[in-house]
Amino acid sequence: MAFIHQIRVRYAECDRMGFVHHSNYALYFEEARTEYMRSLGISYKELEDEGVIMPLRSMHHEFLKAARYDDLLSIEVSVLGEISVRCQFAYRVSNQEGTLCCTGQTDLFFVQKESLKPMRIPASLKTLFESAR
Amino acid sequence: MAFIHQIRVRYAECDRMGFVHHSNYALYFEEARTEYMRSLGISYKELEDEGVIMPLRSMHHEFLKAARYDDLLSIEVSVLGEISVRCQFAYRVSNQEGTLCCTGQTDLFFVQKESLKPMRIPASLKTLFESAR
Amino acid sequence: MAFIHQIRVRYAECDRMGFVHHSNYALYFEEARTEYMRSLGISYKELEDEGVIMPLRSMHHEFLKAARYDDLLSIEVSVLGEISVRCQFAYRVSNQEGTLCCTGQTDLFFVQKESLKPMRIPASLKTLFESAR
Amino acid sequence: MAFIHQIRVRYAECDRMGFVHHSNYALYFEEARTEYMRSLGISYKELEDEGVIMPLRSMHHEFLKAARYDDLLSIEVSVLGEISVRCQFAYRVSNQEGTLCCTGQTDLFFVQKESLKPMRIPASLKTLFESAR
Repeated sequence: MAFIHQIRVRYAECDRMGFVHHSNYALYFEEARTEYMRSLGISYKELEDEGVIMPLRSMHHEFLKAARYDDLLSIEVSVLGEISVRCQFAYRVSNQEGTLCCTGQTDLFFVQKESLKPMRIPASLKTLFESAR
Repeated sequence: MAFIHQIRVRYAECDRMGFVHHSNYALYFEEARTEYMRSLGISYKELEDEGVIMPLRSMHHEFLKAARYDDLLSIEVSVLGEISVRCQFAYRVSNQEGTLCCTGQTDLFFVQKESLKPMRIPASLKTLFESAR
Repeated sequence: MAFIHQIRVRYAECDRMGFVHHSNYALYFEEARTEYMRSLGISYKELEDEGVIMPLRSMHHEFLKAARYDDLLSIEVSVLGEISVRCQFAYRVSNQEGTLCCTGQTDLFFVQKESLKPMRIPASLKTLFESAR
Repeated sequence: MAFIHQIRVRYAECDRMGFVHHSNYALYFEEARTEYMRSLGISYKELEDEGVIMPLRSMHHEFLKAARYDDLLSIEVSVLGEISVRCQFAYRVSNQEGTLCCTGQTDLFFVQKESLKPMRIPASLKTLFESAR
């Protein structure tokens, strides 16, 4: 039940080898995660405006095959495990030939924007995330 | 009486032609401008923390010669004209061979951070800027 | 007869004021220009693979209103004047409320990839560009 | 016997929370790794020009404390284990108060630029890396 979001590789995102520079996958993960949440009825922007932020605790990438300029990438996003204080997402980035280019994982947690204190996931949010299972 | 700041070109800043992607010069201008202000005793961070921001009204670039990966660029910064409501900076970016790669200009103005209303340059700031003439 | 391309503002593209950092408009211009060319039947990637590159000679921005995180921007692209050795594009970036945030212009020229020598626009390309008038 | 490289956080690298966006640590790691290699007498640029590239196989980040605009970060780089076909680097990013903000690891391998085939580390390079132990 994964969500798939497509991103076209920008010229500036490629390095002098013609490959997507590895720092950009974090941006692709984030855009895909945001669109996944939007598809569940969660606007990350509104969440922040309401006082909840979701910073990253950790991030992992495996680079399998170079993606290149103008590639139309498919980023598959899914939630791993139970969501409570933290929230784990997994990503699989493939190019238009279906070749897997990069996989990754991010570990986010819920934090009160003003106090910067960790918090449990708001119940309404949990319901929306679970609706996708 | 120009100020010169050096920046080493990062791998991720170059495109698949091996050239510094043109979007990065705005970052070089900004870093050089910030260091120029620091050399005058003005911390842009503290300025913002005290409620004054300096957004850009316009920016212009002329690209003369491609800069490349690992180049050690010299960015020359100077103030153009009188500073009052707005503040114009000019930039000249040269590589280690002394070849001029890019020139540019930014037009900034002073804004109250909370109200987002334009303001005149604070007097203490004006004094510091003028000390460089 | 302008072309319009939409881009959703990424989280990483906004600065600590919550505004799109000005360096990102160059990326929006480039993505919109590329999609405009694609709509005319011109793949910029294939053009480069066939030995023609289009570097920038100059770029200008006017910043009118801050765009913000998650804004769905409309970038209007059009060609200015005659295309021969050089090619001028104009851009108008508006947010979802229709407010004009940024306008800009880029001046590109045609260059042989191997020799890095300027060249006239290939005839087939000129025909495709003129089909849009 | 770690190497330490300092980087000043750029304005554009911070997000609307005022934190360094997590995607930028990969750039800091890369810049610090390059300077570490330079300190050993290895120019990564020359290495690529001579036909050897070092792409990433994997990358891991742990985010401990937000770094902020204008922070002067110290990035500590060290080599983990034996270098042969692959090369592991570890990173520790601290701010000017000595607070550890981020740790990370990258796993690179040696590849022939033309054939894109993996190779063992060139002997001369291995000697230079080992001189640091």
